Amino acid sequence: MALIVHKYGGTSMGSTERIRNVAKRVAKWHAAGHQVVVVPSAMAGETNRLLGLAREISAMPDGRELDMIAATGEQASSGLLALALQAEGVKARSYAGWQVPIRTDSAFTKARIADIEDARIRKDLDAGQVVIVTGFQGVDPDGNITTLGRGGSDTSAVAVAAALKADECLIYTDVDGVYTTDPRVEPNARRLSVISFEEMLEMASLGSKVLQIRSVEFAGKYHVPLRVLSSLTSPDMPLDEEMRSGTLITFEEDAQMEAAVVSGIAFTRDEAKITLLGVPDKPGIAYSILGKVADANIDVDMIVQNQSVDGTTDFSFTVHRNDFQKVVQLINQEIVPAVGAREVVPDENVAKVSIVGIGMRSHAGIASLMFKTLAEENINIQMISTSEIKTSVLIQDKYMELAVRALHKAFELEAKPA
Amino acid sequence: MALIVHKYGGTSMGSTERIRNVAKRVAKWHAAGHQVVVVPSAMAGETNRLLGLAREISAMPDGRELDMIAATGEQASSGLLALALQAEGVKARSYAGWQVPIRTDSAFTKARIADIEDARIRKDLDAGQVVIVTGFQGVDPDGNITTLGRGGSDTSAVAVAAALKADECLIYTDVDGVYTTDPRVEPNARRLSVISFEEMLEMASLGSKVLQIRSVEFAGKYHVPLRVLSSLTSPDMPLDEEMRSGTLITFEEDAQMEAAVVSGIAFTRDEAKITLLGVPDKPGIAYSILGKVADANIDVDMIVQNQSVDGTTDFSFTVHRNDFQKVVQLINQEIVPAVGAREVVPDENVAKVSIVGIGMRSHAGIASLMFKTLAEENINIQMISTSEIKTSVLIQDKYMELAVRALHKAFELEAKPA
Repeated sequence: MALIVHKYGGTSMGSTERIRNVAKRVAKWHAAGHQVVVVPSAMAGETNRLLGLAREISAMPDGRELDMIAATGEQASSGLLALALQAEGVKARSYAGWQVPIRTDSAFTKARIADIEDARIRKDLDAGQVVIVTGFQGVDPDGNITTLGRGGSDTSAVAVAAALKADECLIYTDVDGVYTTDPRVEPNARRLSVISFEEMLEMASLGSKVLQIRSVEFAGKYHVPLRVLSSLTSPDMPLDEEMRSGTLITFEEDAQMEAAVVSGIAFTRDEAKITLLGVPDKPGIAYSILGKVADANIDVDMIVQNQSVDGTTDFSFTVHRNDFQKVVQLINQEIVPAVGAREVVPDENVAKVSIVGIGMRSHAGIASLMFKTLAEENINIQMISTSEIKTSVLIQDKYMELAVRALHKAFELEAKPA
Repeated sequence: MALIVHKYGGTSMGSTERIRNVAKRVAKWHAAGHQVVVVPSAMAGETNRLLGLAREISAMPDGRELDMIAATGEQASSGLLALALQAEGVKARSYAGWQVPIRTDSAFTKARIADIEDARIRKDLDAGQVVIVTGFQGVDPDGNITTLGRGGSDTSAVAVAAALKADECLIYTDVDGVYTTDPRVEPNARRLSVISFEEMLEMASLGSKVLQIRSVEFAGKYHVPLRVLSSLTSPDMPLDEEMRSGTLITFEEDAQMEAAVVSGIAFTRDEAKITLLGVPDKPGIAYSILGKVADANIDVDMIVQNQSVDGTTDFSFTVHRNDFQKVVQLINQEIVPAVGAREVVPDENVAKVSIVGIGMRSHAGIASLMFKTLAEENINIQMISTSEIKTSVLIQDKYMELAVRALHKAFELEAKPA
């Protein structure tokens, strides 16, 4: 008997018919003798509907009230799932975040989990109940409802699994695992049966949408074994078959690991680039530019400072596209007057493509193969950023799909013919 | 400066546009220096939508989970109203039932309020905030979410007003007050500017849909002055004009009271009649029939036992139409075998029409005028029930509208020409 946490996304909970399917699947795990805690998202579209109502009323809605509103979606879907489980003959109870409680800080709309009380859940599990815990939400020290931000239900599930020291946390979603890259861009993309935690973390932060990055960080911090698998398979699939499906995110970097040096290609159009041309090249120039950006609470991703020519230099960096207008304004109104620059060149037509693999630690020449492959396709590299297990390049966005496909082939990630 | 509780029904909260109107009206009261607590219902249709989802999943849904689901409607509308008030420049905070807390028993889907903690509300009011308290819901001693049953937001509002010793509780709805009878049946029905608490209680229990009976009982128990008024007037209506509008439900039975002996005509098709013919007329016969009905948790309203003939009697009583099938089954399967009866005659084609008025206490002959009026219209009276301030008759339902209009005229309740 194992203690398993299931997480179901909005699509999996998207209708009463689908909720019934989720209940059937959970009932199967329960019938096999496992203790099961389920963390459901709101029904697909519900959170958008609620936030849409809020935006109709207020352009700058207060975070506390926004969370009061948004948290209702998961509360309703949790109750519905409890009813569906009861209809399957399984004892089940649902709990809102504050009832568990899942304690968070007070950063409304993007709160962080501080701790999770496990007494109530354990008591119900020991009594043979399936316990349903609303995703995406918690309660702050003053008793206010908080939410964890978009995709927060993944984080809730991992945090619950960590608090309960669960044997595994299963993230059921509308894809059947983690792929070498997005199959919509590269039809030959292959599902990975295992990926290391560190690779998953890079993939998530570099643009793979399968898991929310904070949930992966949480899993890493508390060593929660995660598995991403499909909720669209038949709920009657034999349990041993289901346990082999999907992608396991593991902490063991051993024989289980696939041999490939590069495990996957991630990509994103979520960044935008700002270049300051002709900045006086003095010590501390990077700080005088990026310090103000950091003060404005904007994260900078890639940074390049060119070789100085005639005492001036060109300075480029990327930020999330959502922060782009704010940064351009900040640059023009505050930074350029203070620092001096000949010209500011904003560029939204960029994309970041990354290769990720634990094998890069022990293999030289991986980045070279990446650069060579892109050069052969006549794709110009604008910026480069590397870490121990990944290399990212910024390129013009129209080449993104081409780059992904070329790299996927170059690193031999295609599905092998059976 | 007064402390005022506002309650807005689902229609008043039916769209973001209407929620903005509610906020404008509340802002006006707040700007006039009053402390305001607002109890909103869920947006019109939302509770039905949620319960519909629950019913799609389960024919016999568990009460605890049903309340978990249904309570979300008011939580969302409360948050939206807080945002709308903030957009009007008014400081506002919303609280779910458990946050206040509003403590109830554990009778899920029809919980009763035990007590309301006022500290949090008072602190916010003293800080100049408008406080929004979700209607319809509370929390039981085990920390489960409960709901108060349909129309429960009226009860929430009155209970909050009682806990805060509010100066007045304003029930904003889609009608502009309490009428002598339903204007859809009698176009000459007249709005009452004042009605006594006892009359309102009778009107509510006899079929007037303006206020939920439990909220009136609550108002009576804690002497909360209630006013029913329209949320469809312009939110910019001058405050003194608004305070004179609607119908005040008062505890003072003095000069304020209108002179009429009968204040209103109530009616309902919500009852059904069961007659047992040829029951052996022994002492205790009423108990042997109605005791079993009471054991089944079914309320009986009107009761008639005929004069005994040849040692047998006919026995009739009415129950709520929702309980009718259950009672007929009970009669046939348990009561008739035990008691003996020649025949059981169920009759759903009945209506109850009532005249209500505090003046009936001091005036004789009121009931006679009622019977005379109905006789003149050739309407047969099947059952009669009286109390100090009302007389009800059961008639064939096809005569209901005719009876209401004839009585309205006979008791001179029409609007007087100006």
